[in-house]
Amino acid sequence: MDANNKFALGVDIGGTKVAAGLVDPKGTILFQTRVPMPARGTASDGFAAVQSAIEAVFAAHADARANLAGIGICAPGPLDPKTGVILNPPNIPCWRNFPLAAEVQRVFGLRARVDNDGNAAALAEAIWGAGVGHKNVFYATLGTGIGTGIVFDGQIYHGRTGSAAEGGHVSIDYHGPVCGCGKRGCIEALAAGPAIARRAREHIAGADRTSTKILALAGGNLDAITAETVAEAYRHGDPLAAAVLEETADLLAFWAGNIIDLLEPDIFIFGGGLAPLMSGFFARIREQLTTCCVNQRFDEIPIVLAKYGADAGIAGAAALCRP
Amino acid sequence: MDANNKFALGVDIGGTKVAAGLVDPKGTILFQTRVPMPARGTASDGFAAVQSAIEAVFAAHADARANLAGIGICAPGPLDPKTGVILNPPNIPCWRNFPLAAEVQRVFGLRARVDNDGNAAALAEAIWGAGVGHKNVFYATLGTGIGTGIVFDGQIYHGRTGSAAEGGHVSIDYHGPVCGCGKRGCIEALAAGPAIARRAREHIAGADRTSTKILALAGGNLDAITAETVAEAYRHGDPLAAAVLEETADLLAFWAGNIIDLLEPDIFIFGGGLAPLMSGFFARIREQLTTCCVNQRFDEIPIVLAKYGADAGIAGAAALCRP
Repeated sequence: MDANNKFALGVDIGGTKVAAGLVDPKGTILFQTRVPMPARGTASDGFAAVQSAIEAVFAAHADARANLAGIGICAPGPLDPKTGVILNPPNIPCWRNFPLAAEVQRVFGLRARVDNDGNAAALAEAIWGAGVGHKNVFYATLGTGIGTGIVFDGQIYHGRTGSAAEGGHVSIDYHGPVCGCGKRGCIEALAAGPAIARRAREHIAGADRTSTKILALAGGNLDAITAETVAEAYRHGDPLAAAVLEETADLLAFWAGNIIDLLEPDIFIFGGGLAPLMSGFFARIREQLTTCCVNQRFDEIPIVLAKYGADAGIAGAAALCRP
Repeated sequence: MDANNKFALGVDIGGTKVAAGLVDPKGTILFQTRVPMPARGTASDGFAAVQSAIEAVFAAHADARANLAGIGICAPGPLDPKTGVILNPPNIPCWRNFPLAAEVQRVFGLRARVDNDGNAAALAEAIWGAGVGHKNVFYATLGTGIGTGIVFDGQIYHGRTGSAAEGGHVSIDYHGPVCGCGKRGCIEALAAGPAIARRAREHIAGADRTSTKILALAGGNLDAITAETVAEAYRHGDPLAAAVLEETADLLAFWAGNIIDLLEPDIFIFGGGLAPLMSGFFARIREQLTTCCVNQRFDEIPIVLAKYGADAGIAGAAALCRP
C-alpha cells in the first residue's frame, strides 16, 4: 500500500511535554495524548516519556500499528534531520547528540523520522493544510518565538546541514534590540509574544497610563503584561493595544518583504498561538508590503492563517512520514 | 551530442552595451565582442544591437554555429525567465513586454533562454566557477548595486514568477537610508559602491579632512568621491578608507548572516567589480558572522571570490544553455 494512504503517528516534543497523535492519510488527527517531558532528567528519562506517549497511542488504537507509514517526531533544534540525531537544544538539556530516530526505530520496529518544529509544521500545511496546491510554501509560527519552515515541491528545504529556515532570526534592524540568540533586531526579538508585551510596556511607561486597559488587565503591574494581555485589551477595543499590534504587523510586513524578495514563495502561511490574533492584520501587512518589497507581483501571494493550530506539532510530525 | 559538450553563445545586455561571447563546454570564453545598446531608442533599435552582437560572434567563429547548444541572454530584470519576455526594466526603457527569447530564436533558429544577470552569473559560478562541487550556491555581485542568484542542484532558483533572489534588497535596517527601490536599509543602499562613497563623504564631512587621502584623490571635491576613490586610498594605506571598508564588511556580514540563517547555502560567492577589493575583508566577514547568525556551523561555509570577473555576464548567459 502506498505510504500516502497509510496512517502516521506524530510525536511533538517540547521543553515540558510530549504530545503524540494518530493522523489519517488526509491529515486529520484522530486521537492524541500527552505526557510530561522530563527535559532536565537523564537521556533515558527523556526517551521513556517519548516511548510512553507512543505506547498510549497504540493502546488506544491497537489496530493502527499494522497500517502505519511510520513515526514522525518534531523537536526543537538544533538537530540533524538526515540522521535523526538531536544535537544540543537549549530547552531539552537531557539530550546531547541523542540518536532519537534510531532509538524509536529500534524500540518500535517502525520507520522513524525527526525534524524541527517549524519545518514539520510547514510540511503539514503544505500537504494537508493552507498550502495545498502551492509549490513553494513559506510558513511562520508566531508565538513565544518565531519559527519558520520552507517547503519546495512537497519537500522540506533543509539547507546544508538541516539548519536552514531559521527565519525568526532574519534581522531587519542591525542595531535593534538583542535577541535571545545574540543577534540584534531579529524579527523574533521585535514581533514575537515577549516583544509585543515589551513594546506595550514601553508605550505605557513612556506615556499616559489611564487611556489604556492593558495595565488594569495586568492587575496594575507593568511587569505582568504579556502578549495575551495586549490581545485581550485589543478585543475590548483598546486603542493602545491596537497601535501595538499594528506596529507588530508593520514589522512582520517589513520582514515578509525580505522573505518575498529573496524566495518569492507561492503562499505565506502564519501559524502559532498568536496567528489568529494577527490574522486581523493580514490586510494591513498586505498594504505595507507595497513599500517593503521590490517584487512587483507580491499582491498575488496569499497571506493566510494556518489550518493547524495547537495541533501543528502532531500534524507536522506525522507529515514527516510521507515519502 | 549532449548539450553539456556543446559550445554556447552568451549575450550580456546592460543599459549602455551589449556584450556577446562564445563559451566552450568548460566555461572558457573563447571570443567576445561588444556593441552599444540604444536603450532609449525603439524596441527594434534595441533588438538590432543584440542581433549585431550575435552576428559578430558568428562572423569571428563561423564554425561555431553547427555545434551550439543555444543562445543564452542575461539582462536586467524584471523579466520572465519562463517565457523569455523582458517586462519593464528601468534602465532599458526601449523594451516593454518584449519577447526577446522568441525573437532571437526566430532570427537565428537556435534555442534561446533569457534570465537576469544575478541568476545567470550564479549559474556560471555553480557549474564552471567557484561553486563547482557545491549543491546550494549563493552568489552576490558587489558593484553599483548588489545583485544575487541562488542555485540549487545546478538549477537557478526562480521563485513563483522568476523574481526571487533579489538579495540586494534584503534590508537589515527598517529605518535605514532609502534605497533606489524605495525600501529602507537594503544591503544595496548600505554596502554597494555608491553607499561606500556616501559613507566616506559623511566621515570626511563630519570629521578631520586632513588625516585622509580620500579627499585629495577626489581632487578636493567631496562630491567627486566614489567607491573607486576609497579603494585607491585604501591601497595607499589610508586609515579612513580602511575604516569605511571594514564597516562595509560588517554590514555585508550581518546581511550574510540573514542569508545563512534562512538558506544555509553550501558556499557564499562574491563577484562583481568591488568583490576583489572586498575579498581582503572576507576573513573579517567570517569573524563577524560569529555574532550575526544562529547557525552553529556557519564557519564551514566557504566565502570566496567569484571565478568570473567582468566576464560574468557572458559566462552566465552561456550557462543558461545548459540543460
